[in-house]
Amino acid sequence: MPVNLLPPNPDDLHPVGGVRLGVTEAAIRKLDRKDLLLVELAEGAAVAGVFTANRFCAAPVLVCREHLTSGGIRALVVNTGIANAGTGEPGMAAARATCEAAAALLGCRARQVLPFSTGVIMEPLPVERLRAGLPACRDRLAAGNWFEAARAIMTTDTLPKAASRTVKIDGKPVTVTGIAKGAGMIRPNMATMLGFVATDAAVGQSALERMVEEAAGRSFNCITVDGDTSTNDSFVLIATGKAGNAPIADPASAAYGELREAVAAVAVQLAQAIVRDGEGATKFISIVVDNGRDHAECKAVGYAIAHSPLVKTAFFASDPNLGRILAAIGNAGIADLDVAPIRLWLDEVLVASGGGRDQGYREEDGARVMKQQEITVRVDLARGSAAATVWTCDFSYDYVKINADYRS
Amino acid sequence: MPVNLLPPNPDDLHPVGGVRLGVTEAAIRKLDRKDLLLVELAEGAAVAGVFTANRFCAAPVLVCREHLTSGGIRALVVNTGIANAGTGEPGMAAARATCEAAAALLGCRARQVLPFSTGVIMEPLPVERLRAGLPACRDRLAAGNWFEAARAIMTTDTLPKAASRTVKIDGKPVTVTGIAKGAGMIRPNMATMLGFVATDAAVGQSALERMVEEAAGRSFNCITVDGDTSTNDSFVLIATGKAGNAPIADPASAAYGELREAVAAVAVQLAQAIVRDGEGATKFISIVVDNGRDHAECKAVGYAIAHSPLVKTAFFASDPNLGRILAAIGNAGIADLDVAPIRLWLDEVLVASGGGRDQGYREEDGARVMKQQEITVRVDLARGSAAATVWTCDFSYDYVKINADYRS
Repeated sequence: MPVNLLPPNPDDLHPVGGVRLGVTEAAIRKLDRKDLLLVELAEGAAVAGVFTANRFCAAPVLVCREHLTSGGIRALVVNTGIANAGTGEPGMAAARATCEAAAALLGCRARQVLPFSTGVIMEPLPVERLRAGLPACRDRLAAGNWFEAARAIMTTDTLPKAASRTVKIDGKPVTVTGIAKGAGMIRPNMATMLGFVATDAAVGQSALERMVEEAAGRSFNCITVDGDTSTNDSFVLIATGKAGNAPIADPASAAYGELREAVAAVAVQLAQAIVRDGEGATKFISIVVDNGRDHAECKAVGYAIAHSPLVKTAFFASDPNLGRILAAIGNAGIADLDVAPIRLWLDEVLVASGGGRDQGYREEDGARVMKQQEITVRVDLARGSAAATVWTCDFSYDYVKINADYRS
Repeated sequence: MPVNLLPPNPDDLHPVGGVRLGVTEAAIRKLDRKDLLLVELAEGAAVAGVFTANRFCAAPVLVCREHLTSGGIRALVVNTGIANAGTGEPGMAAARATCEAAAALLGCRARQVLPFSTGVIMEPLPVERLRAGLPACRDRLAAGNWFEAARAIMTTDTLPKAASRTVKIDGKPVTVTGIAKGAGMIRPNMATMLGFVATDAAVGQSALERMVEEAAGRSFNCITVDGDTSTNDSFVLIATGKAGNAPIADPASAAYGELREAVAAVAVQLAQAIVRDGEGATKFISIVVDNGRDHAECKAVGYAIAHSPLVKTAFFASDPNLGRILAAIGNAGIADLDVAPIRLWLDEVLVASGGGRDQGYREEDGARVMKQQEITVRVDLARGSAAATVWTCDFSYDYVKINADYRS
């Protein structure tokens, strides 16, 4: 059961000029489900991406990195069911064959196609089925297919994830629309499992590369479900230039800032949707770490809390066993951390201070907050002025069930 | 259900000259259970310990570190139910009051007493109940109470953990007997939740300090249940000198080596018992990482596999979804890891090579091994000559159940 997450309304997903999407059932791993997505980009679109830090990264990730160096991207191909990770040289050949098949259909070069895969690791990608399905995707290409695209990239997701907004830049209306998927093996390190955001704004390549990193840093790189960084994490930002604005090149310009905020807002909505739909999630937890020496140590404390199975099961049980949060803070790897001045809040309830339970804390106040579906944990490290936020979910029987059953 | 673990036979636990133990029901947190242990040491015993690296370490840990600097330890007091961690200054006062109460009973100074606590974090230690219980412990002091002591320090443990062996040193029979507790919040970093090993051998203080670190490094520091390093981890080695051997001082001597092997064997048996009795465990997994550049990176790979919830749930399900192990290896934080030469075995079955599934791997072979209760994962990193071993368990519904219920 996702936490306060509704499926997107297809009518709210604004088409992006220069982007057309088509999906089909290619039987990659299971019959009778949409599992193949083709995204066609108009000539002149700029594309930038960030990818997983997992050393066993998937073949499509390696091919994406290579193809992005030469630019001129005209298409994306995304399959679910098989991750094409841990597949060695045959996996690289399959990813390249995918690009060749899409290029032949669309009349471009294979280097102008980016491949993406998600699903089971260490099984071969059935590239023939992919090739057989692509013509149907091409025949269905349409600008209004964002909702269908969001559905076609799901694996253990229970709901499709999409977000869209419009903003004025240079007096021109600009659209930003994106989709994402992911529910488990989620602790993105560069990006989420799969996220695609497109805008019709005109953006220079280097400004776009900076923007995709900034947006990932504020969204997908702040979430975790289970601490497992996927082999396939990819977050791609597309700027087609169809909105008619003056091309954005200067990161210090107002136009860059406005577009970055819109892109980040879409990315944050998608990233939070992944946590809300986290495998087995019953609660959405925001962890805010304040007053650290630097961003990295605030993030380390946030993740230490978010990854502790004991903290996560306490949230599931609505049990204010909050000493577990102190133990997690103590485990964040900050060697010179002085615990005496640290303060811990659960929403507005001050739980801990002076190295232990706060004098004014009453268990019924903690119990009340723990019962909520949305909870903010705030940690004041009292040793600097940096901050970081991590979003996560709790850890339930269903997480075990989903991951003990998945694939079998 | 613990994995291939039987309760120790009280008759197999050899008394250690110079050590007497007494337990009682002090109602620290629950009625009608043994929850307080007093250990009395004869004058002249040498004591060394290693303690948690958690920055929110418990008050008794701080007091132990302080008292060990002056030596002459004559008693240990151990309570379960309340961890006396995250308790600030009142917690320190409670730990000191415990020492004073035991010292008054035994006729020594408070500095000669080491306090230990385990249980719920951030709740106050009811030191009055502890003080009220200690006389009963003293009245029951006996050399043959190791089994009762092992039972009295349990929390979520389903079985008491104890081990004992004898060895000849200088032609003298020497005994090594130990007890430990722990089932969750287990990823010791210096030691386990609580482990106490005593020998009647005579050992110099500095040799004993070296031996306790070596033994911890080969035992408690190789295990993990859930990746959460406790606030209270303590491993203490006691040498009473009653065996009549020539005092051991030189770490290069044969006598040191023989005693170290006996101590390490007892510590490994206790550490593995903790994993076999890990919360919700249904399988015992040994992870052997070979041919790394150094011990640290081998350990990092071992822990990355052992901590991945996806790997642990796959073991629970007996599902050979072994790509998850590759993903975990890729997440171990080794920036320059080349995955192409890595090989992965499940017992004797070669699963992965060349960056992906091995040509000769058959799913039924993987499935057969995954069904076993005891499984060895072996990873050949092919980049050096270092090695490390990590022992862990799987991740089941019962882990969630135990930790959602504990305390409430």
